[in-house]
Amino acid sequence: MQVGMVGLGRMGGNIVRRLMQSGHTAVVYDHHPDAVTGLAGEGATGSESLEDLVARLDAPRVVWVMLPAGDITEATIQQLAGLLEDGDTIIDGGNTFWQDDVRRAGELRSRGLHYIDVGTSGGVWGLERGYCLMIGGETVIVERLDPIFAALAPGRGDLPVTPGREGRDPRAEQGYIHAGPSGAGHFVKMIHNGIEYGLMQAYAEGFDILRNAASPILPPEHRFNFDVADVAEVWRRGSVITSWLLDLTATALAEDEHLSTYSGYVEDSGEGRWTIQAAIDEAVPAEVLTAALYARFRSRQEHTFAEKMLSAMRKGFGGHVEARKPEGEGA
Amino acid sequence: MQVGMVGLGRMGGNIVRRLMQSGHTAVVYDHHPDAVTGLAGEGATGSESLEDLVARLDAPRVVWVMLPAGDITEATIQQLAGLLEDGDTIIDGGNTFWQDDVRRAGELRSRGLHYIDVGTSGGVWGLERGYCLMIGGETVIVERLDPIFAALAPGRGDLPVTPGREGRDPRAEQGYIHAGPSGAGHFVKMIHNGIEYGLMQAYAEGFDILRNAASPILPPEHRFNFDVADVAEVWRRGSVITSWLLDLTATALAEDEHLSTYSGYVEDSGEGRWTIQAAIDEAVPAEVLTAALYARFRSRQEHTFAEKMLSAMRKGFGGHVEARKPEGEGA
Amino acid sequence: MQVGMVGLGRMGGNIVRRLMQSGHTAVVYDHHPDAVTGLAGEGATGSESLEDLVARLDAPRVVWVMLPAGDITEATIQQLAGLLEDGDTIIDGGNTFWQDDVRRAGELRSRGLHYIDVGTSGGVWGLERGYCLMIGGETVIVERLDPIFAALAPGRGDLPVTPGREGRDPRAEQGYIHAGPSGAGHFVKMIHNGIEYGLMQAYAEGFDILRNAASPILPPEHRFNFDVADVAEVWRRGSVITSWLLDLTATALAEDEHLSTYSGYVEDSGEGRWTIQAAIDEAVPAEVLTAALYARFRSRQEHTFAEKMLSAMRKGFGGHVEARKPEGEGA
Amino acid sequence: MQVGMVGLGRMGGNIVRRLMQSGHTAVVYDHHPDAVTGLAGEGATGSESLEDLVARLDAPRVVWVMLPAGDITEATIQQLAGLLEDGDTIIDGGNTFWQDDVRRAGELRSRGLHYIDVGTSGGVWGLERGYCLMIGGETVIVERLDPIFAALAPGRGDLPVTPGREGRDPRAEQGYIHAGPSGAGHFVKMIHNGIEYGLMQAYAEGFDILRNAASPILPPEHRFNFDVADVAEVWRRGSVITSWLLDLTATALAEDEHLSTYSGYVEDSGEGRWTIQAAIDEAVPAEVLTAALYARFRSRQEHTFAEKMLSAMRKGFGGHVEARKPEGEGA
Repeated sequence: MQVGMVGLGRMGGNIVRRLMQSGHTAVVYDHHPDAVTGLAGEGATGSESLEDLVARLDAPRVVWVMLPAGDITEATIQQLAGLLEDGDTIIDGGNTFWQDDVRRAGELRSRGLHYIDVGTSGGVWGLERGYCLMIGGETVIVERLDPIFAALAPGRGDLPVTPGREGRDPRAEQGYIHAGPSGAGHFVKMIHNGIEYGLMQAYAEGFDILRNAASPILPPEHRFNFDVADVAEVWRRGSVITSWLLDLTATALAEDEHLSTYSGYVEDSGEGRWTIQAAIDEAVPAEVLTAALYARFRSRQEHTFAEKMLSAMRKGFGGHVEARKPEGEGA
Repeated sequence: MQVGMVGLGRMGGNIVRRLMQSGHTAVVYDHHPDAVTGLAGEGATGSESLEDLVARLDAPRVVWVMLPAGDITEATIQQLAGLLEDGDTIIDGGNTFWQDDVRRAGELRSRGLHYIDVGTSGGVWGLERGYCLMIGGETVIVERLDPIFAALAPGRGDLPVTPGREGRDPRAEQGYIHAGPSGAGHFVKMIHNGIEYGLMQAYAEGFDILRNAASPILPPEHRFNFDVADVAEVWRRGSVITSWLLDLTATALAEDEHLSTYSGYVEDSGEGRWTIQAAIDEAVPAEVLTAALYARFRSRQEHTFAEKMLSAMRKGFGGHVEARKPEGEGA
Repeated sequence: MQVGMVGLGRMGGNIVRRLMQSGHTAVVYDHHPDAVTGLAGEGATGSESLEDLVARLDAPRVVWVMLPAGDITEATIQQLAGLLEDGDTIIDGGNTFWQDDVRRAGELRSRGLHYIDVGTSGGVWGLERGYCLMIGGETVIVERLDPIFAALAPGRGDLPVTPGREGRDPRAEQGYIHAGPSGAGHFVKMIHNGIEYGLMQAYAEGFDILRNAASPILPPEHRFNFDVADVAEVWRRGSVITSWLLDLTATALAEDEHLSTYSGYVEDSGEGRWTIQAAIDEAVPAEVLTAALYARFRSRQEHTFAEKMLSAMRKGFGGHVEARKPEGEGA
Repeated sequence: MQVGMVGLGRMGGNIVRRLMQSGHTAVVYDHHPDAVTGLAGEGATGSESLEDLVARLDAPRVVWVMLPAGDITEATIQQLAGLLEDGDTIIDGGNTFWQDDVRRAGELRSRGLHYIDVGTSGGVWGLERGYCLMIGGETVIVERLDPIFAALAPGRGDLPVTPGREGRDPRAEQGYIHAGPSGAGHFVKMIHNGIEYGLMQAYAEGFDILRNAASPILPPEHRFNFDVADVAEVWRRGSVITSWLLDLTATALAEDEHLSTYSGYVEDSGEGRWTIQAAIDEAVPAEVLTAALYARFRSRQEHTFAEKMLSAMRKGFGGHVEARKPEGEGA
């Protein structure tokens, strides 16, 4: 099939490459001309503007928008909507808030356009591993675009087959699903990222306790100097907590078990926050996912106002005057 | 009654003063001779050593130990146990782990001595407000010492009477209780402090959100510049969240609404930790009390190893390179 | 002054009563005619419809809307906006989401109307204790309505004066503040409720640990049978955790220390949820306030899907088959 | 090598089998004679008592104790200690609290015996997958027993090699490590389980939010009916959150996506609790691991006393009377 791709960053560029590896063709656009030239050199058809991109695509057109930020995505889709024709499809493969998909699909539908939201996991590894795709939108369009999704997905691979899946959707075993109507794709991706935060924090806390087992605040007979790189490695085989995140952790610790090149300042993206919002809307307790998000918030401040207020109260009732200097980092 | 007091710091000294205000007498000892001299000048009988203190007390003796740290308290009580006689009583009014009381009471009982554990709340305000006393140990001894406890407790004051207390222990309305056998006093005090952590953190988080309502990361139409000192003050009257801790908070914010003299480094004492240990032993979920403790742990580090590990994983799967510098503090 | 009141439930009715006690007059409306008749019998002017209410008020009119649910409040305010005239003022004293205030104030402004949002704390006790008022909106209107707010607020009372407040807004010490522009009043009330959840949960967890200290899962020598009613009472005097919520707790436990008439099913209202949303928008970690909300979510389910999933995984890796029946409640 | 095995349950029996598959020999004992007979039929040497087991082993003996509960393990080791001779070794492969290892190793050392603590992960899958082993104790003994550990461990398998491990301990890549002195093995296993709880809870919460996306409390246009079995399956390939626990989850959901055979009552074992104790001893914030533990505590109660107390306070300040019946479970 032929796909138009808008946005040729780390994700968009590799998606085009993976599509072309399966025999699909692509017309590409990016506001950095170099990115366009680069991919054109690999076999894609370059374009100089959204108008040019649309003009070079055969109807019914499929334009995949893969842009990093919400407002640029919104603006681009609005602009594309003005250029496309009845029956064309826009795919948003970025990290869009699912309620925006619901709204946007309705707006585009009234203009005769189709809209598909695709949550795309795989990061910098997707070109090689394939992309795990969570797709929302009209069934007929999702089925029409199946060759694209099948090409991007990782495929069955050598993973053991899940028993009991007879009669269930075979696409899930290839690494892509049609999750539901508009917004469903990004909703599932949102939860994926929410879980990701929780998993990461669970490993991080466990290793933090391991590392601080050497802390001088402990009695000497209860201290251990663990080689955390070896611990991460040993857990990769035969343990209950084997995972891809653990593999990555083992790699990072093998390089530098003190992680001394990292500041400890940790960003969060919208999905983690939207996950908590969804939990609250549904009245589902989500302690772990929320705590994982808050740990990132806290990591980005030297001290919170809340902490100063604790000190102020302690002084108020107990005359405690808190130390003015933070401790050094753990062990 | 006559009481021996060992430890004349902020707490011990004022307990002696409050006892003397009610006509009780005290023989006092501290390893700082100045503290002894000072209280002697206020009417107490000074002593030069534990031996001297014991010699100056009439049998059956009552010695109140009011020392800040667990190991000194233990050593002092062991030493006293060697000096006292059958029928004498040791009171530990410090912040002792209740399981130590259980053990210690057994040891002293076998030597013919009585042991009373008293959780003492009131801090620097106790001399004026009175001390809230949570007492553990043998009933007969607790009753014999009642005049002491009654003198130290705040008394009924002008607080509204709790309806429905007819037939219940009137001591609770005076501000002291016999909570149960040995350890019960410190157990109740431990929970008091655990709750205290939770209450403090609840206020602190609320004010943090208020203060960061002016944050530039918010859309301009959704920002507020609250006067947090006025907010604390207004909540003191008629709101659901009035409390003594709020009164203290209002005072601190009236002095400096930015709390700029506080570092944000917050200590914790044993009771907060033991409370969590008790919760876990009993399989009681105690999310709020635990989160309050962890906020203090976190406040004492620049960055945790856990946070660095999050950054390492993010780099591993997404190629994210985290900023090296922490943000400034909130708004 | 003259005030129109729409909504004569527990809150609206008592607000009218407290206003009339201070010599203000009220025109009242409720869709239950009995409520109107009742207050008319106490001196208010009854009305039969919003039109009638508006007709009976002198310009510039002040209409206080005090309704329980967000959608009825919205509809009522829209309807009132069509009846009122240039220069009139609508007060929303209910529990409105502050972003709705921001929007609504803008809409009404364009129609020549003023809008004031008032967060009102005090519950069923407000008639007697007074209402703690957190007010948002235009300064000139807030000042014009000052007699109303002053009459409703608790006043200074016999609470100790907060040192250091010289030169600060004296209204805060009377129990009301002008918190900022539209939305500010309900924002501060929202945080008040968020803190309220946290405080309540802190006490609740502490008492849960106390009560389960008698649990048979503990070794016999480490069990205590605490009288939790006495513990609540003793903490009311001289402790660090004295508060109005503790007073209420002491009353509830004095009536029935087993709280056997309560199901343990706990509702939450919008403010607790919006507080967390605000925290997330501001990137402020709010562990305790969030945990308090989630405890309520959890209380309303027999079992979560999450818990079943834990059992499923445990069976998967360890062959564990979980018990089918829940334990009885704690000790 | 020759190993004595005490305890032929799910774990002990399979460990013997896996050892025999690699050419090692075993003398086995269990207080259920059938278990002994069974394994004898597979090639092991049966024994009728601990004395008999010891008599049948060649010096220096190696006895692996693999028993489910702490007190039986302790008693068995004490009994063995009286039967063994200078230079013999006891291995505790169960889930022992690491501080017991520290104490026990010291006691046995004074009697001329060696003690090795082995944290063993693998559950019912270990016979096939191999056991991930975390070993504590004297280096010379750990090295002497290397053939046993190497046989039990999963081996390198077809997992990608972690870059940067050149020069690091090659045993970690085989699935076993010598983690440190006595207690270190069980400490690392404890943290493994603590992390396990956190990972499980992260998945569980995410799927709970997915499932409740169909809840009737949501506006109809924001509801989704996800096929959670397909979601679990799709995440197995190419996503960031692939793991063995996810594989198990996919299997459970493929069998029954409602998990209707599970009660939702979830046990916890000592390791999860000890992990939190270690975190607190080290002053390491461990929000996620703790929240995961508390979710299990909560799952085992119909209602907590804490929840009833919340209702009591709500009634106290707001006149709220809580519903008496819990809601049904989420959507």
